[in-house]
Amino acid sequence: MVRRPYRAAPRGGEFALIDRFTRGLPLGGEGVLLGVGDDAALLRPPPGADLAATVDAVVEGVHFDARFSAEDVGWKALAVNLSDLAAMGARPLWALVALALPRGTPAARVAGIARGLGACARRHRIAVAGGNVSRASELSLTVAVVGAVEPGAALTRAGASPGDLLAVSGTIGDAALGLVPGAPAALVRRQRRPVPRLALGAALAGVASAAIDLSDGLVADLAHLCDASGAGALVDAAALPRSAAYRRAVAGRDDPWAPALGGGEDYELLAAIPPTRLPEALAEARAARTPLTVIGRLVRGRGVRVVDPDGRELPLPPGHDHLRAPATSLTSQGGRLGSSRRRRPARRPS
Amino acid sequence: MVRRPYRAAPRGGEFALIDRFTRGLPLGGEGVLLGVGDDAALLRPPPGADLAATVDAVVEGVHFDARFSAEDVGWKALAVNLSDLAAMGARPLWALVALALPRGTPAARVAGIARGLGACARRHRIAVAGGNVSRASELSLTVAVVGAVEPGAALTRAGASPGDLLAVSGTIGDAALGLVPGAPAALVRRQRRPVPRLALGAALAGVASAAIDLSDGLVADLAHLCDASGAGALVDAAALPRSAAYRRAVAGRDDPWAPALGGGEDYELLAAIPPTRLPEALAEARAARTPLTVIGRLVRGRGVRVVDPDGRELPLPPGHDHLRAPATSLTSQGGRLGSSRRRRPARRPS
Repeated sequence: MVRRPYRAAPRGGEFALIDRFTRGLPLGGEGVLLGVGDDAALLRPPPGADLAATVDAVVEGVHFDARFSAEDVGWKALAVNLSDLAAMGARPLWALVALALPRGTPAARVAGIARGLGACARRHRIAVAGGNVSRASELSLTVAVVGAVEPGAALTRAGASPGDLLAVSGTIGDAALGLVPGAPAALVRRQRRPVPRLALGAALAGVASAAIDLSDGLVADLAHLCDASGAGALVDAAALPRSAAYRRAVAGRDDPWAPALGGGEDYELLAAIPPTRLPEALAEARAARTPLTVIGRLVRGRGVRVVDPDGRELPLPPGHDHLRAPATSLTSQGGRLGSSRRRRPARRPS
Repeated sequence: MVRRPYRAAPRGGEFALIDRFTRGLPLGGEGVLLGVGDDAALLRPPPGADLAATVDAVVEGVHFDARFSAEDVGWKALAVNLSDLAAMGARPLWALVALALPRGTPAARVAGIARGLGACARRHRIAVAGGNVSRASELSLTVAVVGAVEPGAALTRAGASPGDLLAVSGTIGDAALGLVPGAPAALVRRQRRPVPRLALGAALAGVASAAIDLSDGLVADLAHLCDASGAGALVDAAALPRSAAYRRAVAGRDDPWAPALGGGEDYELLAAIPPTRLPEALAEARAARTPLTVIGRLVRGRGVRVVDPDGRELPLPPGHDHLRAPATSLTSQGGRLGSSRRRRPARRPS
């Protein structure tokens, strides 16, 4: 009996789905010698550069819900990682993506995720150099990114000193307000389609003394920067940059600063800047077409304090008490290794 | 009223769990300028090296089950990725890990995963340079690895030609037999604690013409190599390297070669070697203390054929028909982007 030789092809089911996912992605780019399709990608880093690398996941029901389109999910999974590279002052090069799909996921959803991920990758001129699709009981997308940074120029959380000024990019609090039912489109978009501040981050490398991106909320992330730098912080609530949509959304509330102080997921940059470097930092921000607003300064001591226009100290954002739950279970949505940083949906303002 | 300044510390619940995970891992190593704890890791690649990078996930109930200890899960999640680097001839440097945990995961399980992951990382002298912990409804561990490879020396699936000899490392079929209830410990260990063939892979770079690691099973992975290289293959079943435990396990069966041909997850290397380079390849394998066995050769044409000692063509492994399921759903456990490669548990031999 003559048998047809075994071949990997023809491809059905899962491979069609994987191909559908792959087709939406920019697979080639700077330094990609061999992209998807072999055991590993082969990549050539820029000569003399150091690399910045990080990994993060978005999980259905934890980091996004049914209000997110497939495109939103793909975009955001990459954008939150690129924001981490922005906070290091790195230029992103490559992403590796691991998509986990429940049985029966429609091909159109997979294609939508690829479109959103691909759109974010193209906008920031990076290649998806590798990836994997797994079955799972819930949809998740885990992305690792690698970027280049000039040796010695990377921004960390740890380089700041008392006296340094604190500045944030763009406007804050919008993403949290974007979770409120009936929120205007501008705020919803901030929640679902964050834009990593890559140009600003790269411009501030060598100018700022420390930086962090705002994923957990201003006060929480500022506390991380303070802890890493061994300083305290004093923030002027009236200086917090808030969008017109934010101001409308909080009109009449007695805590108009709460979303800006406690809401997460804006993916703006918070930088510490020595006063003598401020003019340079502001010029760099203008060149990067990114608003940069001074909101306070680092002080001796520990901890974050926020004062209102009358000089009264404001209560700090609630909602972090769940961190004190019993240490035998993971009670929140996760965090970065070696830090107290979490990735979670912005809390809906109460 | 004097308020206690807000600080990221003290850390409870999730952070204690993250710390528990982190403590089990080797965080520093070659080229790690800044490890876990900032927005991204800062890494210095070896001067002049190219990089090999890949990502893969193991998901509870898909890639492992309750028979796996927490240590097994941690070990295997890293080992399967390192096997991909071995297949490229790369030297591994860094891993980034994303752990997804259901609510209520015991801290001891997290610590066990870290121990297994850490043991595999230490054995292969790599650093866990970054990571993230997320909440999810099922436990999964997604690992991205980066290694170094001399420019031009990387092994791919695509470089082989008709006439090249085919050789596999170690023994094959063991991991699949390790899934059979009551399997001896030696086979179970092959399933749960695969050992990536890194020394052999690096030694074969520049000697072999192509390579792939055996995750899907010999015939399936050989078919990938054949497709990529534009060749067919002829395999001598009697030459397949089978362990003593394998031989005992299949004694009396009328398909004694089936687990070696169709069983996956051995994470051995399959290499194509030009005949003139065979002595050198065998010497390199001896130096790497890794058995390397010639099992056949590449031929003109397409597809894989396997012949028994009487020269009769053997039926090829069943079980790939599910790939022809409707293209609108993911019907199997996943695959590598841009290839027809899947990651899945070895089928239990019937």
